[in-house]
Amino acid sequence: MKPTITAFKASPDQGQGLARDMRVRWALEEAGQAYDVRLVTFAEMKEPAHLVLHPFGQIPTYEEGDLTLFESGAIILHIAETRDGLLPAEPNARARAIMWMFAAVNTVEPPIVEYEQAQFTDQGKPWAAERRASLVPPIRKRLGELSRRLGDADWIDGDFSAGDIMLVMVLRRLDGDNLVEEFPNLAAYVARAEARPAYRRAFAAQYAVFEAAQAEA
Amino acid sequence: MKPTITAFKASPDQGQGLARDMRVRWALEEAGQAYDVRLVTFAEMKEPAHLVLHPFGQIPTYEEGDLTLFESGAIILHIAETRDGLLPAEPNARARAIMWMFAAVNTVEPPIVEYEQAQFTDQGKPWAAERRASLVPPIRKRLGELSRRLGDADWIDGDFSAGDIMLVMVLRRLDGDNLVEEFPNLAAYVARAEARPAYRRAFAAQYAVFEAAQAEA
Repeated sequence: MKPTITAFKASPDQGQGLARDMRVRWALEEAGQAYDVRLVTFAEMKEPAHLVLHPFGQIPTYEEGDLTLFESGAIILHIAETRDGLLPAEPNARARAIMWMFAAVNTVEPPIVEYEQAQFTDQGKPWAAERRASLVPPIRKRLGELSRRLGDADWIDGDFSAGDIMLVMVLRRLDGDNLVEEFPNLAAYVARAEARPAYRRAFAAQYAVFEAAQAEA
Repeated sequence: MKPTITAFKASPDQGQGLARDMRVRWALEEAGQAYDVRLVTFAEMKEPAHLVLHPFGQIPTYEEGDLTLFESGAIILHIAETRDGLLPAEPNARARAIMWMFAAVNTVEPPIVEYEQAQFTDQGKPWAAERRASLVPPIRKRLGELSRRLGDADWIDGDFSAGDIMLVMVLRRLDGDNLVEEFPNLAAYVARAEARPAYRRAFAAQYAVFEAAQAEA
């Protein structure tokens, strides 16, 4: 059954592919699964029709027959469990790939999101500059730990998996900050992922939404 | 095979059961799986022997035969997939239970952790009080959304699942802050979980570690 996902009608990231629908699009492309997209405005995301799908009023959601999911990690894990190409078959390797999915969103991402959000929430506050500087070392620490674990491997644990999708998309949030670049193996890891045909198709699809929104504006 | 987990030798939470080994202990108790615990000091967590198990130098880890995992969500999902009692059998209900595991750590927990950490990072700063106040509304927003979704149900999506373990443990981080108490159905939800025999056994086990550390000190 062809699933339907939701994405921003006008993504605040200006087509950079940093919104969380990009992760899901990429996973669907890796799995060779066609999908439909329903675009929603910020106002629509807070309306009852969307809150039924996503109680926290965000994107993406995923609808497939009777199943409705939200939370990009859970959506990608569902795709990975029902299609080929995103998780190893061997049980221990599979458990480790899922481990990296959780590590991406629960250990690597939080200090990055905090740093990102500070740009908005701390604007004009007396603590803005000092706090922003204090948010960089925790990111650098995590990146260093991740870099040491990756070493000179192509992917984080054996073959490419959904764990790499989640990690790469979290690292991509630092695009333009010159932090990932301090760790050449991590920068190469992100570039390797971005060169995958499935990634490129997903990126192009979300970029087309941005272009359409620009044309409409 | 009997798994071994790691936990703090001297937990900074003084026996409150807020460290992430508590979640794993609870899941193991729900599944009726006996386990061993290896206690580690903060210094040991940063040593090579531990970093092989956990590249980010934290607890808990999980060792079972050839498998080593870190990240509490991934460990609990592995336990749930290999034992009964933590995930529904019906595929859609199962996907939704996993969705709540991700939602707990990726959507509900981040503003709570930020609020918690501010107590330490902002200590003595002139802006500490103002910033602390600014961190409460995002938590209240998430709690309100979660409260509306829970409604008058006993558990977040049908029968008790690993999704409830993750959500309850995230809500418990607010113990003593009187925020969960603003939403009586959430407070009752946490109390209902804490009354489960498996929760009580897990809590007692981690408390015994705290008492032993006290006796030694």
